[in-house]
Amino acid sequence: MRTVLVIGIGAGDPDHLTLQAVAAMRRADVFFGIDKGTVKDDLAALRTELLDRHVDAGTYHVVDAPDPERDRDAGGSAYRDAVLDWQDRRADLYAAMIADELGPDGVGAFLVWGDPSLYDGTLRLLAGIREADLASGGQGFDIESVPGVSSVAALAAAHRLILNRVGGSVLVTTGRRLAAGMPREVDDVVVMLDGATTFATLPDDDLAIYWGAYLGTPDEILVSGDLQEVKDEIVRVRAEARARKGWIMDTYLLRRDPGRR
Amino acid sequence: MRTVLVIGIGAGDPDHLTLQAVAAMRRADVFFGIDKGTVKDDLAALRTELLDRHVDAGTYHVVDAPDPERDRDAGGSAYRDAVLDWQDRRADLYAAMIADELGPDGVGAFLVWGDPSLYDGTLRLLAGIREADLASGGQGFDIESVPGVSSVAALAAAHRLILNRVGGSVLVTTGRRLAAGMPREVDDVVVMLDGATTFATLPDDDLAIYWGAYLGTPDEILVSGDLQEVKDEIVRVRAEARARKGWIMDTYLLRRDPGRR
Repeated sequence: MRTVLVIGIGAGDPDHLTLQAVAAMRRADVFFGIDKGTVKDDLAALRTELLDRHVDAGTYHVVDAPDPERDRDAGGSAYRDAVLDWQDRRADLYAAMIADELGPDGVGAFLVWGDPSLYDGTLRLLAGIREADLASGGQGFDIESVPGVSSVAALAAAHRLILNRVGGSVLVTTGRRLAAGMPREVDDVVVMLDGATTFATLPDDDLAIYWGAYLGTPDEILVSGDLQEVKDEIVRVRAEARARKGWIMDTYLLRRDPGRR
Repeated sequence: MRTVLVIGIGAGDPDHLTLQAVAAMRRADVFFGIDKGTVKDDLAALRTELLDRHVDAGTYHVVDAPDPERDRDAGGSAYRDAVLDWQDRRADLYAAMIADELGPDGVGAFLVWGDPSLYDGTLRLLAGIREADLASGGQGFDIESVPGVSSVAALAAAHRLILNRVGGSVLVTTGRRLAAGMPREVDDVVVMLDGATTFATLPDDDLAIYWGAYLGTPDEILVSGDLQEVKDEIVRVRAEARARKGWIMDTYLLRRDPGRR
């Protein structure tokens, strides 16, 4: 049976890799990659470093495909449609790579940032491809997920934080959803995928922010403090870093009323 | 300067350990442990295995202390008080171990299940001990947190799940909070620390559950399906496993309306 591995490689530090991930990488005949334009150089460099360090040369090859265009300006309900449309086209690419590159007992692998279970679509795409393959009389393939250190865990570690208060809840959400305001029903909110610095639009005066970019890498930047006091600094630092590197990956925790911690 | 490391060792599989965690373990002169009664044997066995595999014998020693008694029957607002009181007594133990065992440049380490940032109090206790030490004229100590594979990530990987839907949020909460009902404002809820099988009390007929116990270990048990259809099976399997091993660690995802996935 063909097998496709989805391997979480951690949030940016090559040493976030788990021993399980190293073992999984050594099982793979082929690594599938997606060309992400400007982010590509850093992503590709990390992947190359991990393969060089942990897998014997000559035991694998790497296949790349260009990432489909995505309408990043879509708002409201069009946003979900734009994401799904982009995922459909990505699924076609993945399906072709799997069909072309994996022999009957072949093992392919996707290396994904962080943990495969948080804001990464690879497992969803593979499940759909497998279903379509089986429906059209194909043999399908096994899917395995290898957990990793998420950017949420990396953010917390960098700030030496516990995300939950005693007995409390933690919400993990997106910048797009935060735009509706800080949720009332939970005091600790981790925000991912916020390209619009939504935190800076919140009027709340009872929030602390713990922000981090390029977590686990030599470029890591951390800022924390009262949201209203540090938000302008974060917006500025973020814009400078993004201009310098050409891309940014950042995440943050919003914590209501730090005095009650 | 003295340093205390809080090292996430993953959810139960010794290969969840990251390369960063291995490197951190090799820096430690002393490993601090807490005797947890019935759970102790398995926890201690894993720690011993990790140390034997990754750290040279003779370069470290291990110090254990008995875990303080905790009032687990406290309900309502008394629950938080009971936890805080137990944490105070635990803090006294930790403070004594640090004071007694760490020389001026000593490095001590706590190995914690999963990731140090989720439902583990070690970082909170250490921050309090450090503050008290500095306030009484001591030199304090550095605290470092090493992120790990959380039981949330391990649960998702075992079920090959992505926790969030496209653009959606994920709430991580406790069984105690779930007792108030499935939150309306979020469709994907991960529940930790549910000793009372609260899922089985929910009347909702639009929920799927993905449950796992002893994640990442040879004893791993997984059950998933429509909540109302599988809840009795999970309660039964859980009770049997707990009776057999003397303890259980489990977690689960509740997902509203799986038809919309």
